[in-house]
Amino acid sequence: MKKPFIFITNDDGVNARGLKAVTEVALRFGRVVVIAPETTQSGMAHAVTMYSPLYLRTVEKRGDLTVYACSGTPVDCVKMGYDHIFAGERPALNISGINHGSNSAVSILYSGTMGAAIEASFYGAPSVGLSLTDHSPDADFEASALFAEKIISDMLTANINEPVCLNVNIPVGRPDQIRGYRVCRQNRGYWKEEFYCRKDPRGKDYFWLTGDFYNQEPDATDTDEWALANGYISVVPVQVDMTNYRQIDSVKAILK
Amino acid sequence: MKKPFIFITNDDGVNARGLKAVTEVALRFGRVVVIAPETTQSGMAHAVTMYSPLYLRTVEKRGDLTVYACSGTPVDCVKMGYDHIFAGERPALNISGINHGSNSAVSILYSGTMGAAIEASFYGAPSVGLSLTDHSPDADFEASALFAEKIISDMLTANINEPVCLNVNIPVGRPDQIRGYRVCRQNRGYWKEEFYCRKDPRGKDYFWLTGDFYNQEPDATDTDEWALANGYISVVPVQVDMTNYRQIDSVKAILK
Repeated sequence: MKKPFIFITNDDGVNARGLKAVTEVALRFGRVVVIAPETTQSGMAHAVTMYSPLYLRTVEKRGDLTVYACSGTPVDCVKMGYDHIFAGERPALNISGINHGSNSAVSILYSGTMGAAIEASFYGAPSVGLSLTDHSPDADFEASALFAEKIISDMLTANINEPVCLNVNIPVGRPDQIRGYRVCRQNRGYWKEEFYCRKDPRGKDYFWLTGDFYNQEPDATDTDEWALANGYISVVPVQVDMTNYRQIDSVKAILK
Repeated sequence: MKKPFIFITNDDGVNARGLKAVTEVALRFGRVVVIAPETTQSGMAHAVTMYSPLYLRTVEKRGDLTVYACSGTPVDCVKMGYDHIFAGERPALNISGINHGSNSAVSILYSGTMGAAIEASFYGAPSVGLSLTDHSPDADFEASALFAEKIISDMLTANINEPVCLNVNIPVGRPDQIRGYRVCRQNRGYWKEEFYCRKDPRGKDYFWLTGDFYNQEPDATDTDEWALANGYISVVPVQVDMTNYRQIDSVKAILK
């Protein structure tokens, strides 16, 4: 049987440990093509590069693995794969991650990891965005890798007949501390920022963005935030219809 | 009566004609603060700047108008406004645009205009993203400005008690060719890219991204694509819960 073809990207860049961890796992299942950004692209959401050209670099070829670095965003990496490198061959599975840091709740909107996972799902194969709720570059990926292996196995063996894109967040912890999956919904809430203002060496103010998440439904138990806070891996199936159907009639009443 | 406070941003940058057109319109209604990117940020989606500091520059102060330029993304501009410049004062209305180019259907995901409109709506006041389906820098904004005036008037006078974010796209045409509003839903479809490959002066390949939109429901008549193709202004109420509720059970069956 032909080995399944797995595509991997991320937003932390081609050298990130989370990317390497999931790549090693994926190689147990099939051929792997990695196309990851040259540089960190955290917070790049669904951005595409429109006003500068993209460069592509072959980083590594060994056995079943080929790794490319692309000068653009995570979504650029996906498009570069599907519309250039793959030459018509279609992956059986798309993986984005493992991200250093959570992408639960509204963070999905800002997330380059999820931007890439969503974009990849447009091309037909199932997509999984994987994030560990630990931002540090030296985060412990042992449990994440173990569950990533289980998810890849489940996704490759399932009979999936429609577009699927999963936002998977893994809580920090040893493997035996993680209580399994919770398929759940996106928690409502938003990020409120604080700006650190400093002066540059020329006396000009500059600002650093830093924020806190405000949970608008702290008591809900069917959300990704609840799952993560209670030791579960949160799994949110994602769709991209942003229409607020509930408001169609009220908006008709506003616009005369 | 105190003049209403209107916040305006965009993704084409502080010098874009579409921004200036809507700013002049908004000044007929109240005080206006513009915070727009220094440079073009088309395709920047919901991106935030995480790994470089932001600079802010006062561009203009005259009468009821203050204009700032921010070195970051459209979403950075929104956060800079709400979490720094406004100092607790809350706009009555947020406007993003008028964008040079359509943001209908799945383009909402890639759109810096809509990234900013969505982000602004998180802070409570209604948001309107305005786009003209003409990419050219010298697009004719006469009809757009006319309808923007009507939308601003409708939004300021309506009694709106919940978060509202509208994705408004205006077809190209003279004012009398535009048939009015259609409140509708986001059309299903995706962008398929083609990469133009060229060689730089050092002999290295580089790529330009260019794409076509594939409409997955060309026969639907309740979508933004249909509205625009038939001379209407499309108005899609937007929400940010990306959960695919329909798939929660099927995903539970996949992940064992």
